[in-house]
Amino acid sequence: MVIQKTLSIRTDGRGTRDITADVNNIVADAKIHSGICHVFVHHTSASVILCENADPVVRDDLETYMSRNVPDGDPDFRHSAEGPDDMVAHIRSILTGSGLSIPVQGGRCLLGTWQGIYLWEHRTSGHSRKFTVTLYGE
Amino acid sequence: MVIQKTLSIRTDGRGTRDITADVNNIVADAKIHSGICHVFVHHTSASVILCENADPVVRDDLETYMSRNVPDGDPDFRHSAEGPDDMVAHIRSILTGSGLSIPVQGGRCLLGTWQGIYLWEHRTSGHSRKFTVTLYGE
Amino acid sequence: MVIQKTLSIRTDGRGTRDITADVNNIVADAKIHSGICHVFVHHTSASVILCENADPVVRDDLETYMSRNVPDGDPDFRHSAEGPDDMVAHIRSILTGSGLSIPVQGGRCLLGTWQGIYLWEHRTSGHSRKFTVTLYGE
Repeated sequence: MVIQKTLSIRTDGRGTRDITADVNNIVADAKIHSGICHVFVHHTSASVILCENADPVVRDDLETYMSRNVPDGDPDFRHSAEGPDDMVAHIRSILTGSGLSIPVQGGRCLLGTWQGIYLWEHRTSGHSRKFTVTLYGE
Repeated sequence: MVIQKTLSIRTDGRGTRDITADVNNIVADAKIHSGICHVFVHHTSASVILCENADPVVRDDLETYMSRNVPDGDPDFRHSAEGPDDMVAHIRSILTGSGLSIPVQGGRCLLGTWQGIYLWEHRTSGHSRKFTVTLYGE
Repeated sequence: MVIQKTLSIRTDGRGTRDITADVNNIVADAKIHSGICHVFVHHTSASVILCENADPVVRDDLETYMSRNVPDGDPDFRHSAEGPDDMVAHIRSILTGSGLSIPVQGGRCLLGTWQGIYLWEHRTSGHSRKFTVTLYGE
């Protein structure tokens, strides 16, 4: 059995957005007892990650790390026509991943207590971002 | 057909632990001819990676790289209540991934000769870590 | 339904190779309406990534970033017998990933407009690289 659903959200610019509930709702409706849930973002300037979900400061620090490690406006980059944050967004997306798979059991994602699912916008301005949730199992 | 099994191991603190045999045993028992094996760790301070399995020095160098690139006790991080290695562990986990999928063929993981599966503990002290292996195919 | 195919390509040394058409051809032949396409490289010195596919300079800049961030011949690395680019290749592969999954819908990979699939060779010399495409769905 395969269930596939594409959602669209509007981001407010660089930062993480919790999509755990959006994903969990699709899993709950699907009535899959045992399988996999795959989440995939259809853009090269955004990622889907798992991150600690208790302290929002964790995601601020993550942003601090990335801003230092892949800084905007890097003078060595030649792909700069779309702004100082565009090439950087592609690199961030490749380092952190466009998709992830999570085990499903008893009709829910088998996440650890502190694991939340986040869509990470890497551009400084807001964008419309599409992501697809695919569930398969029995 | 879906087979799902959760294992628990106790780590000795920061470093990699070879879990290839644990995963392979589940695959061998499952008798799946053709499909996918997914390995997922239920924590935000550990990862599951594929790494060169012949020379253990490779994993020491990997640790050297990470210790330099994401150093403990970074003064710019504000999430520090759980120790100087905690925020760092979350970043390492996001950069290297909480899960991976491997093709299965003829009842075994189709790994390259030098590919081993490792659970990577990112905290400096030992922890109990749960990971789930999901097999699906025919 | 599971379809699995292993392809082999010869790389020209460090750099990305577009394998989108190779993967899409397998998906088109498979006649899977809804499911997942998984691409996996059987080596610890190469990756499979999604990257912006319109401007080739993006992939040059990506190489620039990696060459600076994980430089060849790092004097702190002890795994050096196979050349100054070998340990570096293992780290690059772990940071960017050996495999990825893409949703399949209506007999094709559901990629965003600007998403291409690339095999990334991390060694400086050319190598023969095997990758396996696994399709599952209905």
